[in-house]
Amino acid sequence: MTNRIKVGIVGATGYTGVELLRLLAAHPNVEVTAVTSRGEAGVAVADYFPSLRGVYDLAFQAPEEAALEQCDVVFFATPHAVAMKDVPALLEKGVRVIDLSADYRLKDIPTWEKWYGTTHTSPKEVADAVYGLCEMNHDAIKDARLVAVPGCYPTCVSLPLLPLLKEGRLKENYPLIADCKTGVSGSGRKGNIGSLFCEVGDNFKAYGVGGHRHLPEFKQIINSLQNNIADNFIFVPHLTPMIRGMHATIYLHLQPDTDPHNILSRFYENSPFVDVMPSGSAPETRSVRGANLCRISVQRAPEQDVWIVLSVLDNLVKGAAGQAVQNMNIMFGFEEQAGLGNVPLLP
Amino acid sequence: MTNRIKVGIVGATGYTGVELLRLLAAHPNVEVTAVTSRGEAGVAVADYFPSLRGVYDLAFQAPEEAALEQCDVVFFATPHAVAMKDVPALLEKGVRVIDLSADYRLKDIPTWEKWYGTTHTSPKEVADAVYGLCEMNHDAIKDARLVAVPGCYPTCVSLPLLPLLKEGRLKENYPLIADCKTGVSGSGRKGNIGSLFCEVGDNFKAYGVGGHRHLPEFKQIINSLQNNIADNFIFVPHLTPMIRGMHATIYLHLQPDTDPHNILSRFYENSPFVDVMPSGSAPETRSVRGANLCRISVQRAPEQDVWIVLSVLDNLVKGAAGQAVQNMNIMFGFEEQAGLGNVPLLP
Amino acid sequence: MTNRIKVGIVGATGYTGVELLRLLAAHPNVEVTAVTSRGEAGVAVADYFPSLRGVYDLAFQAPEEAALEQCDVVFFATPHAVAMKDVPALLEKGVRVIDLSADYRLKDIPTWEKWYGTTHTSPKEVADAVYGLCEMNHDAIKDARLVAVPGCYPTCVSLPLLPLLKEGRLKENYPLIADCKTGVSGSGRKGNIGSLFCEVGDNFKAYGVGGHRHLPEFKQIINSLQNNIADNFIFVPHLTPMIRGMHATIYLHLQPDTDPHNILSRFYENSPFVDVMPSGSAPETRSVRGANLCRISVQRAPEQDVWIVLSVLDNLVKGAAGQAVQNMNIMFGFEEQAGLGNVPLLP
Amino acid sequence: MTNRIKVGIVGATGYTGVELLRLLAAHPNVEVTAVTSRGEAGVAVADYFPSLRGVYDLAFQAPEEAALEQCDVVFFATPHAVAMKDVPALLEKGVRVIDLSADYRLKDIPTWEKWYGTTHTSPKEVADAVYGLCEMNHDAIKDARLVAVPGCYPTCVSLPLLPLLKEGRLKENYPLIADCKTGVSGSGRKGNIGSLFCEVGDNFKAYGVGGHRHLPEFKQIINSLQNNIADNFIFVPHLTPMIRGMHATIYLHLQPDTDPHNILSRFYENSPFVDVMPSGSAPETRSVRGANLCRISVQRAPEQDVWIVLSVLDNLVKGAAGQAVQNMNIMFGFEEQAGLGNVPLLP
Repeated sequence: MTNRIKVGIVGATGYTGVELLRLLAAHPNVEVTAVTSRGEAGVAVADYFPSLRGVYDLAFQAPEEAALEQCDVVFFATPHAVAMKDVPALLEKGVRVIDLSADYRLKDIPTWEKWYGTTHTSPKEVADAVYGLCEMNHDAIKDARLVAVPGCYPTCVSLPLLPLLKEGRLKENYPLIADCKTGVSGSGRKGNIGSLFCEVGDNFKAYGVGGHRHLPEFKQIINSLQNNIADNFIFVPHLTPMIRGMHATIYLHLQPDTDPHNILSRFYENSPFVDVMPSGSAPETRSVRGANLCRISVQRAPEQDVWIVLSVLDNLVKGAAGQAVQNMNIMFGFEEQAGLGNVPLLP
Repeated sequence: MTNRIKVGIVGATGYTGVELLRLLAAHPNVEVTAVTSRGEAGVAVADYFPSLRGVYDLAFQAPEEAALEQCDVVFFATPHAVAMKDVPALLEKGVRVIDLSADYRLKDIPTWEKWYGTTHTSPKEVADAVYGLCEMNHDAIKDARLVAVPGCYPTCVSLPLLPLLKEGRLKENYPLIADCKTGVSGSGRKGNIGSLFCEVGDNFKAYGVGGHRHLPEFKQIINSLQNNIADNFIFVPHLTPMIRGMHATIYLHLQPDTDPHNILSRFYENSPFVDVMPSGSAPETRSVRGANLCRISVQRAPEQDVWIVLSVLDNLVKGAAGQAVQNMNIMFGFEEQAGLGNVPLLP
Repeated sequence: MTNRIKVGIVGATGYTGVELLRLLAAHPNVEVTAVTSRGEAGVAVADYFPSLRGVYDLAFQAPEEAALEQCDVVFFATPHAVAMKDVPALLEKGVRVIDLSADYRLKDIPTWEKWYGTTHTSPKEVADAVYGLCEMNHDAIKDARLVAVPGCYPTCVSLPLLPLLKEGRLKENYPLIADCKTGVSGSGRKGNIGSLFCEVGDNFKAYGVGGHRHLPEFKQIINSLQNNIADNFIFVPHLTPMIRGMHATIYLHLQPDTDPHNILSRFYENSPFVDVMPSGSAPETRSVRGANLCRISVQRAPEQDVWIVLSVLDNLVKGAAGQAVQNMNIMFGFEEQAGLGNVPLLP
Repeated sequence: MTNRIKVGIVGATGYTGVELLRLLAAHPNVEVTAVTSRGEAGVAVADYFPSLRGVYDLAFQAPEEAALEQCDVVFFATPHAVAMKDVPALLEKGVRVIDLSADYRLKDIPTWEKWYGTTHTSPKEVADAVYGLCEMNHDAIKDARLVAVPGCYPTCVSLPLLPLLKEGRLKENYPLIADCKTGVSGSGRKGNIGSLFCEVGDNFKAYGVGGHRHLPEFKQIINSLQNNIADNFIFVPHLTPMIRGMHATIYLHLQPDTDPHNILSRFYENSPFVDVMPSGSAPETRSVRGANLCRISVQRAPEQDVWIVLSVLDNLVKGAAGQAVQNMNIMFGFEEQAGLGNVPLLP
């Protein structure tokens, strides 16, 4: 156990928390030394999550009792507006922080406050936070003291758009539509009626059509890459009766003589986490289940001047805990695939 | 049982077949007198479908042995390219036919032959067939001797578009996108690996992006209603892990000063089968489970000049067997809701 | 609407509540005049349950504001320990009551209080309540002022055992095992984590092995039919990833020369709600989905002196709301199948 | 890649095949050098199973073209009655074989032939085959040239019974009941209607009550451990709407003064693959999803002299491919957990 960094997880009873525990259990360079949960303080992790029996010997602790300041890095797997309260003190003590919530994603504080309905208590740290979309901000992440892990939707949609936006290939003044479908784990492990088996099962619906919290995050990414595109971005999320998985169907207009498959293939040529499939493929969400992968395909709509991009990831892995570990690997100079080598579970 | 018409069903062992049997069992004006299945000839319907124990006393018969020509109307719930072989003879004997397959949907024979990969053997009848989208062709259906029941996708997408196209409200030269999601029963009750529980469950994917058989059907409908729109139609179907249900998310551009909610509400004001929900609603597929209903909502994309239409139906009912029965009701002058009064099953 | 009785439903936002609304909408002899919900008072039923749009024009009312005392009968679809507070006053005003909760099921007050952890406030009415297992207590139900609708497990297990126990055919001192599997809707429409899609989906587990509230209800039924059997009754419930449906696998020892298939077939010969299938059949839960049916088969274990009974029902229909309506039909002299003629929804 | 043994897989397009590929990809001591499939010969593994893109560079080969005889060990993931045709030749060439089918499980040839309906063509090898229940036959497996991997049901039921039978603790002349529930992947990746999403989804049923192929396998195990018990064994399998997972609920009678929890705990004290949970626990199938684990709990039925054992495993891992790899590890002297260290995937 020598030479392993000490890792803490705040809010470890949710789905991203247990997924972090799963991934970090197999990580050669870390030791999880503190996991917190206000509600389950004193309960052994292995009793709460029987899937972790024999894997962890830890018990949950109340946040204030956990020795988080002795960790090298602390993950926040908390609901929104929690991390911003505790992160500043940890940063001051030299602990690096990887926040999976939305608290440090948006640079514009008033926008954040509008969408999350509360005052931001840590605006100074927002300015320093690095947006942890690894394939976009790799170098900045290396030295980051605070990383804001992107939301699952922005990750799924941005990874295919990134190379195209970067090269300025999108047509201005045309709609850029992301019709997204998510599994239910994205709505968290809370006892709300809308996530019950009998509400979600054998059912399909859109939600948040009139406005979704990920919208300003999308616009921030797009604006940082190509001008005059974000205003035409349309985002419609849907809820699908599956546990894990996210699928984006993106309709976009490209400059003449653009070969998006070629651009994507070159950009992700050496990426172990983004798989550009042959044109005409249709990636399945299960082909990435449990793995830190995004699979993408792109093709032209038959007889049209519109391109269709299909992008899938596991919302709990590349869309959350896996990307968080990937950020940690970059921050600490570990092999980028360390702890992330799982082959997807199929069927 | 006096005054009931005699009904036959060809190919009654599939999902649309058993759904016809369910609906017709409760219909006050019909008696099912013949059900055919080549594979299950001699087997009692109630043994094959235990859900129908105590409901039907019939056995499946080989098609050539069933007294179909003594029926008043025969439903074809067969795979494509079957009905076209047997329908002409039945029509000649004065039997009316309601075909749930694709054989009589497309007026253009070469197009049909291209998409279905075989020669059409009944082109004369194609010309006479009425396209059974009841809300569009109500009057023509009354006198039809042969009705081609629309596909589930075209029904789900056309019902909300119909009033807008009819009034010429779509903008030319703008994409008209139908991002559709279907339950698995739409792919039928055949032993193909792609429909296995372990292939479809906990999974989501697009399919047929490069071209789908419903595409020419869509274009035919659109062209019959408004010019210069069909060429901009884009259709991407997806497979969702649910048994029944279909959801269309439609992105469209409308002429200035169009109020689509108002147009739809007026058009369907007296329709018992199409429910225009308040703007901003998100219809769920389960809200129509088992019922002959299409629920629709329409709203403007936030801060955009694009409209988003959401439309749901049960692919086996309003998308197939229910719409077939509705056609029969119109053809025979029955109450249009006869046998179609089921309240949706929720949860 | 003349000659229809007036019906009230208390606690109509749960799964048994919405199922009562579905069934009563199609009932020729009733009019639902009051539905209550403390949490949703003022909300239109059709807004809360979009599946009921166009079916009901009512809004939920707070219980104290609803004109329940003007109803002919009131259904309680409430959690346990609610009905017992309001039922006595309604009975006094001559309103008949059908309680779907456990409040009036157990005759022995101390046993009830032990399992439900609270003092029973209506013990006098317990004595008068009729246990609404229709196939067992048909005559008593006719004149009942207060019916306690059986739990879903006791219904599923008791219907096949009833004829055998009545004839004293079970062997004493041998285990009588009911290994039961339920769909998730049985645990209600409450926001508890254990019923989330991501907790229940793709998962199977036993629960309550050490003791379950339905155990004393089982024992009460058994003891009323045959002596010296209840003490050997073992009940293990399991949770299955499906919405509706319950399956009991019962292992029992019978007196020599007993033909249980014959006994069951004769007993249920004229029953429209209990279907005794051929020996060797394996009833599926979906074969009764949405219908007020229990399907049963019985066979001897190969080369053993143990009998295996398989019994299925829809926990929300024959296991709750359907059986409640059946009780109402008997109480008011309606046709026993009124409102209960649905053909099961398959697939 | 030096010092890795060469591994072949015959019939690698099924669920146990792809699961072997997943597990062996992460195994430090093996290299998969040949995968066969008659139907998919020439197709790249990564094209057929997109979950393996970037993991394998192999293509399927026709069995006769694959260099299986150059492998150190060959896995047969074939339907029954396939392995027995090819295994003898491989064994003769010194290749060791691990058969996941039933061909070498039963020592009694006539019994095998009765249940599998064909003549056994390799009876000599049956005699030499070691039954690969690792926790029972560990030493014999070390030197085995041919291992017959147990069925999923026998593994799930035998692991908890093994220590009790070994000590002769079961009561003679009392029923020993295994009420088992399986996920759908157990029925394989074949296009049969009974495994369709729309047949299995939202449904539960028993099957094979009158007799199941695993019955003689169960009896063989039991008889090898304790006398006069197998004749009282009753096995009822059920099909559950989940992809992976198996749950056994076992009802048994024990000699007086037996503490089964203690016996099991001691027996499996050092086992990394069998987890004896605290008495009163209810193991969930998802707690072992994707992992080579069997979790067990045992408790007395309340107020009865019957014990209830609950046992769960992932039918594709500890019930098939994982146990096969475990056998390989033992045969070749690898660390027993090599390639089997996955933490279960939850949710």
